[in-house]
Amino acid sequence: MTSANVPETTREIHLAARPVGVPRLDDLAITEAKLPELADGQILVRNTWMSVDPYMRGRMDDVPSPVLPPFAIGEPLDGSAVGEVVASRSAAIAVGATVSHFLGWREHAVLDGSAAEVVDTAIARARAYLGPLGPTGLTAYAAVTDVAAVRPGDVVFVSSAAGAVGSVAGQLARKAGAARVIGSAGGPEKAAALLDVFGFDAAIDHRAGPVGEQLARVAPDGIDVYVDNVGGEHLAAALDALHVGGRVALVGAISGYNAVQPPPGPSNLLQAVLKQITLRGMQVGAYLPQMGRYTARAAGWLADGSLRTRETVYEGLEQAPEALLGVLTGAGVGKVLVRLGG
Amino acid sequence: MTSANVPETTREIHLAARPVGVPRLDDLAITEAKLPELADGQILVRNTWMSVDPYMRGRMDDVPSPVLPPFAIGEPLDGSAVGEVVASRSAAIAVGATVSHFLGWREHAVLDGSAAEVVDTAIARARAYLGPLGPTGLTAYAAVTDVAAVRPGDVVFVSSAAGAVGSVAGQLARKAGAARVIGSAGGPEKAAALLDVFGFDAAIDHRAGPVGEQLARVAPDGIDVYVDNVGGEHLAAALDALHVGGRVALVGAISGYNAVQPPPGPSNLLQAVLKQITLRGMQVGAYLPQMGRYTARAAGWLADGSLRTRETVYEGLEQAPEALLGVLTGAGVGKVLVRLGG
Repeated sequence: MTSANVPETTREIHLAARPVGVPRLDDLAITEAKLPELADGQILVRNTWMSVDPYMRGRMDDVPSPVLPPFAIGEPLDGSAVGEVVASRSAAIAVGATVSHFLGWREHAVLDGSAAEVVDTAIARARAYLGPLGPTGLTAYAAVTDVAAVRPGDVVFVSSAAGAVGSVAGQLARKAGAARVIGSAGGPEKAAALLDVFGFDAAIDHRAGPVGEQLARVAPDGIDVYVDNVGGEHLAAALDALHVGGRVALVGAISGYNAVQPPPGPSNLLQAVLKQITLRGMQVGAYLPQMGRYTARAAGWLADGSLRTRETVYEGLEQAPEALLGVLTGAGVGKVLVRLGG
Repeated sequence: MTSANVPETTREIHLAARPVGVPRLDDLAITEAKLPELADGQILVRNTWMSVDPYMRGRMDDVPSPVLPPFAIGEPLDGSAVGEVVASRSAAIAVGATVSHFLGWREHAVLDGSAAEVVDTAIARARAYLGPLGPTGLTAYAAVTDVAAVRPGDVVFVSSAAGAVGSVAGQLARKAGAARVIGSAGGPEKAAALLDVFGFDAAIDHRAGPVGEQLARVAPDGIDVYVDNVGGEHLAAALDALHVGGRVALVGAISGYNAVQPPPGPSNLLQAVLKQITLRGMQVGAYLPQMGRYTARAAGWLADGSLRTRETVYEGLEQAPEALLGVLTGAGVGKVLVRLGG
């Protein structure tokens, strides 16, 4: 099986130390590792693109989670990636196929063919399967269409709206019939992107002033739905602005991810009682059976230009730690990716 | 129309001053007021029992609410009451009928017959229509059967469980098939009542130690449902204990009602994301169309002894301010009532 294309070692990103607060570059380390021989049913993938996601911060702490286990010190990280199959002992996946899988944060990965999904690069670029056509897009789709169940005429507020999930959520809210879509992002450049790139009706720069005051200004008659990627001040502002019967999709809580002490929750949860508001936490894992159907629809929207995306790309495994720190501190617009091996 | 039974004046409880923090007795005042002549369709009710409810604290602040307007300084409070009709210009309601209505906090009330409901004192005592057969019971019923949707086998946690809503909610959770029902109350006497009177499987005295630690002890395998009457520390403990897919009925937030500064919310709302937890705020007003059907069922449970209740009774309008302060500081077990006119 060994050939010029089939290396015996790979480079991986390891967790070197558990961060306290905002991670530092030296909490991560690049390590050389020997690749195992392919067992029956396995494939060897040369990763070409890796997804960089805020939720990964939680896995850097040694805290049990119902979703994914913590990363281990001295072991490689993992996460969504796409790549090319360079060797295969799987009957279902041929050498040369482009696959998406979960063994990112390394240049090459050995995995069971059953843990990889062949993606169709005729309908979209491979890396789109990490963004609008992958778990990122499905998260936004589930939040908008199921968890918060946006209805025609709704006024919808999205936080972290220039991010990978938020930028798709805002556009899908519009497709679901929202009358007005408001986004929040950090800094004037991102706020401008909400209006100019992603077609939001109004944008809040949360670094420019209190979210509650700004939201009251752009949504003086209140909101029906809030897609929450950040928690904290944004959630409190939304609870004040939501109408009776309002709906909140709890997708993430990035405002607390780097906190040494978890920040207090909103002090106005009584508003949820008074206004009969529903808050629903979600994990994209629950929606994976819908991925194929979603991907097919979203590929159409990408092709016809009705779903617009942006990417922030880091080059090479060396930049992967920087990419992760960037996504955790709000750098970049749209999907944050690492491109491997040119 | 005037007779020995039909007074020309009544005594009322007025809001004398807006409380800051825990109300003081002199924030309320007893005032004599002239009763208006009955207009066509109106009835005059001699109130016999008045309901004393925690939510009234919110109406003592000058803060707009989507539910009920703030009480006005120098004007009478209102709230649920039952009484006897002593004069009537309503074709639908005869003198002598027992009615429930919303003009409590006064000894006599003049109101439209359409705003009163004749209650059946053959199936239950009049004051039961303020407790298990009235909005209090319907709140518990809606929280358990609809908002949190208790299913057979669920482990259910109820806070303020010795209170009027909580004590009914725990018993209705059992009727809905809960495998284990856990209650929290303040002080050893109330905690004992949970076990001995209301049939809970386990009781937490939240004054005896951290709620989270005690809940972990009595529910080591976690909980499925939390009926939240208090917010704050209880909600945080429940979020930690809830299973994936857990459900929270947000019924009240009494832990913050007397706060000068609203207390911070739970710092672990991220658990709702990770565990796909749903939190639903509710108002009993949304369930009033079900009141008749609920009351008929609950009257049967009272009669067959399968729904047990306790009352804390204050005597006379003079004690009504004390009753309200009591309910806001956790005094008393079960439904807090004021009996009028012996």
